[in-house]
Amino acid sequence: MSRDGTRANGRFITLEGIDGSGKSTQAQALRDALEARGIEVVLTREPGGSPGAEDIRKLVLEGDPDRWSAESELLLFTAARRDHLERTIWPALAAGKVVICDRFVDSTRMYQGLSRGDLRAKVDALHDLMIGIEADLTLLFDMDPDLGHARAKARATAEERFEDFGAELQVRMRRGFLELAAEYPGRFHIIKAGRDIAAVSADVSKVVMAHLAVESPAG
Amino acid sequence: MSRDGTRANGRFITLEGIDGSGKSTQAQALRDALEARGIEVVLTREPGGSPGAEDIRKLVLEGDPDRWSAESELLLFTAARRDHLERTIWPALAAGKVVICDRFVDSTRMYQGLSRGDLRAKVDALHDLMIGIEADLTLLFDMDPDLGHARAKARATAEERFEDFGAELQVRMRRGFLELAAEYPGRFHIIKAGRDIAAVSADVSKVVMAHLAVESPAG
Repeated sequence: MSRDGTRANGRFITLEGIDGSGKSTQAQALRDALEARGIEVVLTREPGGSPGAEDIRKLVLEGDPDRWSAESELLLFTAARRDHLERTIWPALAAGKVVICDRFVDSTRMYQGLSRGDLRAKVDALHDLMIGIEADLTLLFDMDPDLGHARAKARATAEERFEDFGAELQVRMRRGFLELAAEYPGRFHIIKAGRDIAAVSADVSKVVMAHLAVESPAG
Repeated sequence: MSRDGTRANGRFITLEGIDGSGKSTQAQALRDALEARGIEVVLTREPGGSPGAEDIRKLVLEGDPDRWSAESELLLFTAARRDHLERTIWPALAAGKVVICDRFVDSTRMYQGLSRGDLRAKVDALHDLMIGIEADLTLLFDMDPDLGHARAKARATAEERFEDFGAELQVRMRRGFLELAAEYPGRFHIIKAGRDIAAVSADVSKVVMAHLAVESPAG
């Protein structure tokens, strides 16, 4: 395991966007597309992504929504991210694999930073101190927040309290993600979501293949 | 609840020292002594000290000792400390009470920082970023580490893996605590432990009463 975050030959790709933007479906489609080209992929997600991180995720998501303050929650999610990084992401990158991660620190920057604006600086400082790694490429699935909210609500279960944001917050989140993309133009690539799944997948593949410098098949 | 860490009129007293140095016994004796003088006291301890922090403590202390890296463990303990601070320490200080805390960040500075020297800077940075508060008075129970180790071993149970340090590490811990006391001379007060409980208690009372500017009874 690499303790210094060295990527070796692997690439770290994160998928971000508001709830219901199709990230998870597209993450799977991207994995299939890369594997079909003989590329070794590790598909993972946050919060969670390693046994320890999943246990921390449970601790955060279960129980009274007011159980943890924003600061405690941020520390717990950072602990989970550190475990995920050490147990899943670093080893895969060190082995030269492509890591596809459904949500990473940009989601924290949004969900914690936007809902408590004064926390954004703490999110960044904590990330720099304890995590350090940024994605090589971040795909932002951008779409009409009303559509995203309706989709997320339709599939939400009682325990998924993190999906339980109002439509207004979804609008702020979308704007927040777009602002984040403007902050990191070299890393972010905006994908027009909310369209036909295959059309979105084709865009995703094209962007990722170009990033990996692997020739994309015709079309 | 005070979110900015304002102490109001309360005082924050921490007890530190190697395993078996008598901290917990003396913490209770100090509480009794203060309450006998009509002073409102909250006696608490770390890791733990609030329901959320106790749940995090369980997550850290149970299971395979290699389950968490030093960095993940540090983040989990800091999350627990933040919860403890918000739910137990700040409200008590804001209400003008004396908080007696059996172990606080100095234990982290030692246990995490000393066992992985390169982590000390991270411990301090994380504390400054997410916790902020230092004790008004820290009592360091200093004693022969051989005696402390024998005592701690005698009472250790299988789940108390944090007590399961070798005698050599106890020697380093003692030295580490003394170095820490030298680093923060205004806050630390060294108590000669390993003596008769009543004699130690009398010293503790004298130091604390002087700190609180409450007149100590004769003797």
